[in-house]
Amino acid sequence: MIEFALPIRVYIEDTDAGGIVFYANYLKYFERARTELVRSRGYQLRSSMASNINYVVHSLELKYIKPARLDDQIVAWARIGKVARTYFLVEQWVSDEAGETLVKGSVKIACTHLDSGRPRSLTEDLLRALT
Amino acid sequence: MIEFALPIRVYIEDTDAGGIVFYANYLKYFERARTELVRSRGYQLRSSMASNINYVVHSLELKYIKPARLDDQIVAWARIGKVARTYFLVEQWVSDEAGETLVKGSVKIACTHLDSGRPRSLTEDLLRALT
Amino acid sequence: MIEFALPIRVYIEDTDAGGIVFYANYLKYFERARTELVRSRGYQLRSSMASNINYVVHSLELKYIKPARLDDQIVAWARIGKVARTYFLVEQWVSDEAGETLVKGSVKIACTHLDSGRPRSLTEDLLRALT
Amino acid sequence: MIEFALPIRVYIEDTDAGGIVFYANYLKYFERARTELVRSRGYQLRSSMASNINYVVHSLELKYIKPARLDDQIVAWARIGKVARTYFLVEQWVSDEAGETLVKGSVKIACTHLDSGRPRSLTEDLLRALT
Repeated sequence: MIEFALPIRVYIEDTDAGGIVFYANYLKYFERARTELVRSRGYQLRSSMASNINYVVHSLELKYIKPARLDDQIVAWARIGKVARTYFLVEQWVSDEAGETLVKGSVKIACTHLDSGRPRSLTEDLLRALT
Repeated sequence: MIEFALPIRVYIEDTDAGGIVFYANYLKYFERARTELVRSRGYQLRSSMASNINYVVHSLELKYIKPARLDDQIVAWARIGKVARTYFLVEQWVSDEAGETLVKGSVKIACTHLDSGRPRSLTEDLLRALT
Repeated sequence: MIEFALPIRVYIEDTDAGGIVFYANYLKYFERARTELVRSRGYQLRSSMASNINYVVHSLELKYIKPARLDDQIVAWARIGKVARTYFLVEQWVSDEAGETLVKGSVKIACTHLDSGRPRSLTEDLLRALT
Repeated sequence: MIEFALPIRVYIEDTDAGGIVFYANYLKYFERARTELVRSRGYQLRSSMASNINYVVHSLELKYIKPARLDDQIVAWARIGKVARTYFLVEQWVSDEAGETLVKGSVKIACTHLDSGRPRSLTEDLLRALT
């Protein structure tokens, strides 16, 4: 099981006038955790872009259970699920310091050509990083 | 059918190093369209906050079909679905100038007490706005 | 005098837990107004990027006078100041519906090669747009 | 000299279609560094908000020297300057891994009543944290 946990502090930039983390910002946390997961396995997104390869989110679902607030110390998780020829699935969630889940979801990532946006198969480098 | 279409210009702030709109930002567009939908029906979010009422996203799903890019003129749509006692559903999508759908999803909004975050029933004002 | 006024609605995405627009977001409003100013004069940022030309902010100063809040209808202004060989100045401010200035500043924009980031002279297209 | 250095990774959320960190986002980095500086000295922003106290940016100036890019590991710095009765100054900059300065600026922070937005004197807690 390939999994990564990224500690994140909630800053004022993340919050909204409701006093809680703005709902779109959990997708930033998810993306950070995915990035660190692949980085921890020797893969860098920037170098793939230089080779005309991009990884884009194909679809996602998300459930908001309990809000994070300013100054909270939270953890963003990413766990690799199914890895197919042109996409892979990532289970993701955010937990608080007590380990309680605040938000959970799953994200499907597809590999594309950076210039045309058309799908292509995952690179061997990434396959190695994910399996 | 209660529906709202909000024209949006894609600015550099919305894009990422992949040259396309960052995936979390469609949730900003969705939220703008929801806000304008309820505003167009006489409801303002700020006044509800002053009454200790908040509307929070309970869950959502999202499918990314085709990316929007810098300078694109797009439209964010919101269409009210089921309205229940403590929540309502909104069908949402973003289309390009040719009317092609770029992103589509559905969002479930729950009504809560702003201070405690606990669920409560929709206000009568909002019910009137949504039905 | 080349000037542009862009009406902007303040959405929840723009606010922070202090209930006001997050201070960095006025730079988004400024950039939108600059973009629409040059667009209104026939210039598109995206096409310049395709020609390996980028316009980057060299420096800025900003004064926050009065906060904008959720649901406010504000106006972001851009007025072209000095236009030199490799840069130009833009006076910028945000006003509320009563015309009162909320934030004001000035921004110096430099022209660079997109790939190397090195300075270059403004394109003739942009010079025509700015003068 | 009261100073704080916060390591920051540049994620895709921070970048724009020019392939570099969007210019407004350095203000997020600055704010994170200021927050961690005061936190490191025993002061939490959230508790002050609960006491109807807010700290808002009064003015700033910023110079962009060299862009940060995706995957860069940078450091955001905050150094307390003059501390007066109702405001304080913070020198701020971002450096890269080689210690080179990418962006530098100075920020003036004023203390206000959270509800009215009117200026007030710094709290004793914060004064202790800053001196």
